Amino acid sequence: MIKITFPDGSVKEYRSGISSLEIAEQISPRLAKEVYAATVNNEIVDLTRPINQDATLKLHKWEDEAARHAFWHSSAHLMAEALELLYPGIKFGIGPAIESGFYYDVDPGDGRVITEENFPAIENKMRELASGNQQFIKRNASKKEAAELFTKKGDQYKTELISELEDGTISLYTQGSFTDLCRGPHLPSTEPIKAIKLLSVAGAYWRGNEKNRMLTRIYGITFPKQKMLDDYLIFLEEARRRDHRRIGKELELFTFSQQVGMGLPLWMPRGAELRQNLIDFMTVVLKKRGYVIVATPHIGGVSLYKTSGHYEKYGKDSFRPISTPQEGEFFMLKPMNCPHHCEIFNATPHSYKELPLRMAEFGTVYRYEQSGELHGLTRVRSFTQDDAHHFCRPDQVKEEFISIIDLVQFIFKAVKLDDFTAQISLRDRSTKEKYIGSDENWELAEKAIIEAAGEKGLETAVVPGEAAFYGPKLDFMVKDALGRKWQLGTIQVDYNMPERFNLTYNGSDNQKHRPVMIHRAIFGSLERFIAVLIENTAGKFPLWLAPDKAVILPISEKFNDYAAKILDFLNNSDICTRIDDRNEKIGKKIRDNELKRIPYLLIIGEKEAGNGTVSVRRQGEGDKGSMKVEEFAEFVAKEIARETTF
Amino acid sequence: MIKITFPDGSVKEYRSGISSLEIAEQISPRLAKEVYAATVNNEIVDLTRPINQDATLKLHKWEDEAARHAFWHSSAHLMAEALELLYPGIKFGIGPAIESGFYYDVDPGDGRVITEENFPAIENKMRELASGNQQFIKRNASKKEAAELFTKKGDQYKTELISELEDGTISLYTQGSFTDLCRGPHLPSTEPIKAIKLLSVAGAYWRGNEKNRMLTRIYGITFPKQKMLDDYLIFLEEARRRDHRRIGKELELFTFSQQVGMGLPLWMPRGAELRQNLIDFMTVVLKKRGYVIVATPHIGGVSLYKTSGHYEKYGKDSFRPISTPQEGEFFMLKPMNCPHHCEIFNATPHSYKELPLRMAEFGTVYRYEQSGELHGLTRVRSFTQDDAHHFCRPDQVKEEFISIIDLVQFIFKAVKLDDFTAQISLRDRSTKEKYIGSDENWELAEKAIIEAAGEKGLETAVVPGEAAFYGPKLDFMVKDALGRKWQLGTIQVDYNMPERFNLTYNGSDNQKHRPVMIHRAIFGSLERFIAVLIENTAGKFPLWLAPDKAVILPISEKFNDYAAKILDFLNNSDICTRIDDRNEKIGKKIRDNELKRIPYLLIIGEKEAGNGTVSVRRQGEGDKGSMKVEEFAEFVAKEIARETTF
Repeated sequence: MIKITFPDGSVKEYRSGISSLEIAEQISPRLAKEVYAATVNNEIVDLTRPINQDATLKLHKWEDEAARHAFWHSSAHLMAEALELLYPGIKFGIGPAIESGFYYDVDPGDGRVITEENFPAIENKMRELASGNQQFIKRNASKKEAAELFTKKGDQYKTELISELEDGTISLYTQGSFTDLCRGPHLPSTEPIKAIKLLSVAGAYWRGNEKNRMLTRIYGITFPKQKMLDDYLIFLEEARRRDHRRIGKELELFTFSQQVGMGLPLWMPRGAELRQNLIDFMTVVLKKRGYVIVATPHIGGVSLYKTSGHYEKYGKDSFRPISTPQEGEFFMLKPMNCPHHCEIFNATPHSYKELPLRMAEFGTVYRYEQSGELHGLTRVRSFTQDDAHHFCRPDQVKEEFISIIDLVQFIFKAVKLDDFTAQISLRDRSTKEKYIGSDENWELAEKAIIEAAGEKGLETAVVPGEAAFYGPKLDFMVKDALGRKWQLGTIQVDYNMPERFNLTYNGSDNQKHRPVMIHRAIFGSLERFIAVLIENTAGKFPLWLAPDKAVILPISEKFNDYAAKILDFLNNSDICTRIDDRNEKIGKKIRDNELKRIPYLLIIGEKEAGNGTVSVRRQGEGDKGSMKVEEFAEFVAKEIARETTF
Repeated sequence: MIKITFPDGSVKEYRSGISSLEIAEQISPRLAKEVYAATVNNEIVDLTRPINQDATLKLHKWEDEAARHAFWHSSAHLMAEALELLYPGIKFGIGPAIESGFYYDVDPGDGRVITEENFPAIENKMRELASGNQQFIKRNASKKEAAELFTKKGDQYKTELISELEDGTISLYTQGSFTDLCRGPHLPSTEPIKAIKLLSVAGAYWRGNEKNRMLTRIYGITFPKQKMLDDYLIFLEEARRRDHRRIGKELELFTFSQQVGMGLPLWMPRGAELRQNLIDFMTVVLKKRGYVIVATPHIGGVSLYKTSGHYEKYGKDSFRPISTPQEGEFFMLKPMNCPHHCEIFNATPHSYKELPLRMAEFGTVYRYEQSGELHGLTRVRSFTQDDAHHFCRPDQVKEEFISIIDLVQFIFKAVKLDDFTAQISLRDRSTKEKYIGSDENWELAEKAIIEAAGEKGLETAVVPGEAAFYGPKLDFMVKDALGRKWQLGTIQVDYNMPERFNLTYNGSDNQKHRPVMIHRAIFGSLERFIAVLIENTAGKFPLWLAPDKAVILPISEKFNDYAAKILDFLNNSDICTRIDDRNEKIGKKIRDNELKRIPYLLIIGEKEAGNGTVSVRRQGEGDKGSMKVEEFAEFVAKEIARETTF
């Protein structure tokens, strides 16, 4: 008999050789139908693998990533089987599970092309095969055996992969007529795969190298229930509708130019206004909270980044150093603001009384990303960090964390993203030598972070071993309106940079001491944050953030003069307003401007011009009645105050 | 007899062979003593050169640059003569006149070193020689003769220069025992050089190349009267006192870091605040005047700059292109914002009704400067332009110029630099083919600029032939408190960029038309402008610009709590305030903070804490009496409103 320990700590005895699936069945037949993978002694494995010794066991239901991963990975194999039956001789690259669904890179061969039109046939074949309840059978194979198998089949991509594997580590999975080189884990059978949808097709170079052959990448998703697929497709449609790239274009917020370069956003007037609204709001808040703001160039000498250690990370595989006509001079586009901030810290002497020194900058940094990885504003090559560095004494780490967590809570509330959790990353105590900084300081900082998070009532997960080598950290995960999670703010303790830049302050003992440096960002990147904001609000920004607060719609040209007067009054009252004086029917003007998500539509005609009023419509909500222009200005000011004061 | 035409158009007859000096003497012996050079038929020449045919003549008095140039160039020769007598065997590089004074690069040889300690001896020798009334005698020499002369003397720098000259163009000037290779013009004699001062000594590589020998550069200045030298030295002392590099350090406005790189300013908190105050003020003004603001990355693809034509100018001799791991991708640090703005213009279609489109950005650009040419904030490698581009119809050029001139007048008044003139640069009508754009558009634009300047009452000089090839322009010259002139704002019409980027708008005829582009900057570069501002105000900024408006000085630690309360109140009232709670006597605190040029010093003690007041002191002016804290806030707000509203 072997002892199985469950996540709740309970222990049960089972016969040796029992599988996770059998254990699940013994607990309840219903449970057995809901689990898709298991973690046995910290290894994620097939449900059918026998357990031969005492072990810890976690059974994975759909909610666990491990379950979905096995489900979708098995679905990729199922799609491959269907493709092989429909396109005999088709060759296979790789076919992994991804965050949502799976894909397979294939080479249809014979001049054949697979397009979305072929999806229904492939889906039907997959459904047919799945309902046959085929088992996924694993077997280990020697390198020679595996190579022979795929050489015989003519699958050159697989043989290339096998040639790079170590003998003794190779396994094959077979279901029905299809065998794949694969590490697994997989479902016991195709039976749970009830709902199937292929999503898109794209070109993808073999191994991501543009010198290789272009394969066909087919994306799909599957679920154990049709309802789940239906919901997912609605979610997908909603996500598409909210896609920040689409809304950014519709609302003329930002654009990209081939000549300027991929991944380098150009902020159009309305986008620049939105971005500036965020910066201005944050600036006021920062100043009230004792920050000083600095401004530094976007390049720095290579020696600066050698001192900071960034050259090692960004020097070769990123934007390459910039040379000048003067010999021996090399600059880099700055990948981070911290080295510049350290140089400012070092420009003047500091006393312990001045600390903490909270130095902030909206600093634009440049990081090279492969062109294939660029995506709208979420993955770019230039982005502006709402960056700050707290230079403090070791005994101030806790109060600085409290201050930053409080700031993050305030800001996230103002931008209506207040559903968030945090992860605290600590060092691995068993390998203390991997980390820099004294044991005493680490103890102090880790304790400070945990206590600070506790005192601020933050929902946290504490993960040992996840700290950077230079210090522990706390990251915020924000959930958006579609339930998607985004990693935004981060707070990181750093014992490394102060050493590298030889930062010091004069202590009360009149001796030089080393300050602690805390890196923190709230939005992280303004570009990425604005993408999240657009997708979260579907472009209907909170009033305080909206680039235009109102648009004036004269019913006819007769009222253009009155419209111009109101425009001036509102713009002078700091209420950014536009005018739509096109020669169009008022109904069309309302519809067009509703689509632009401008919060307030101000309709003016005979009556309004006569008594100095505007007829107010709230975007998406309809008529709010008529008001004096001054009343409207006050009304807007109050709404903004409500949104930003709490 | 020959006819001489004077600047006032009058014509007189003189014998052929008469010199400018003799003509001056005939007009009045006093005038002859006041002129130092002459322009004969558009060539600046020695006063003693015979005139052998009809000519136009302008005699140059001290006020003319040509006069000072001849005076100081002759003074450089005088210094060289003195040096050769004091340091026999000394070798000479070049010795030109500069904007203020002259220098000579010399190689003292024999391990000799010339320092400031040797200046009195050199000055004395110069005075002795000058009072000898030595004539400057010019003679032409063949290349061979000149080479032999300096080879015999062992003057290898001169022989190197001669080797590069064309035979038949070489002239020598001799005064006393000293002969120099020189084009002139020079004074008739050393007699007018009455006041002499050597200013400094520095190292300078021969021909500016660091691979060459380091020569000794001796700077000096001379005047025809001692009083003028005395005034100049006072001016120099005042300029030194106001030097923005010195004040920038004292007030902790900006710093440079060797590791970040030369010429790349780091804005410290107070400097960043000052800079942001300028940007914020300008932003409000721009929005009221119908500008939209955009934000673009600091790099662009090389192809963008090939399209714009900037690659040709900045591609090789500046910061070199940035490569990436992806092949064939090259970026440049942006030398100008206009290409990015053209791409934003091109991102959406435009109708004639939308024009003018005024697109502004505080855009940081990067231009390589030789390290030897860098100087504080006035000559840097990265600077932020208050840049804007007006895209307009050809018939709108005049109204756009009026709008921009009006804006410039408003802004210069707000920064208290309202002593300025303007230069209008037109094309040379005799070489119309050198300019791009239609004849009609040039006529229209040149007329528009002249009329606009006239209507705005601008004091202008109109200079034909000085326009850029792409359009006419108007530049502003501002005079500072020391009477020095700075070129700040500029407005330039551009017919080239719209062609290169194929910019179009839909006209009322529903056809595509080419817009005119007007580049304009008011400060030019924020960095350089802040340098001018610092030197003009000696660091005593107008209240609205001052980074800190007030500092609270508690008389003793007992009042720190009350001080903290006031600090909060003022900062929350948008009055940036600091506190000086050092444990020092109040007299010392006042002295220290007066030096920091913080406009208001708020002293608090028993009485103030008791009745909620502050005792107000204006920096540099003294006591202003006691006020309630709220009254003080209002007082400050009113002063700022007075400064910025007119």
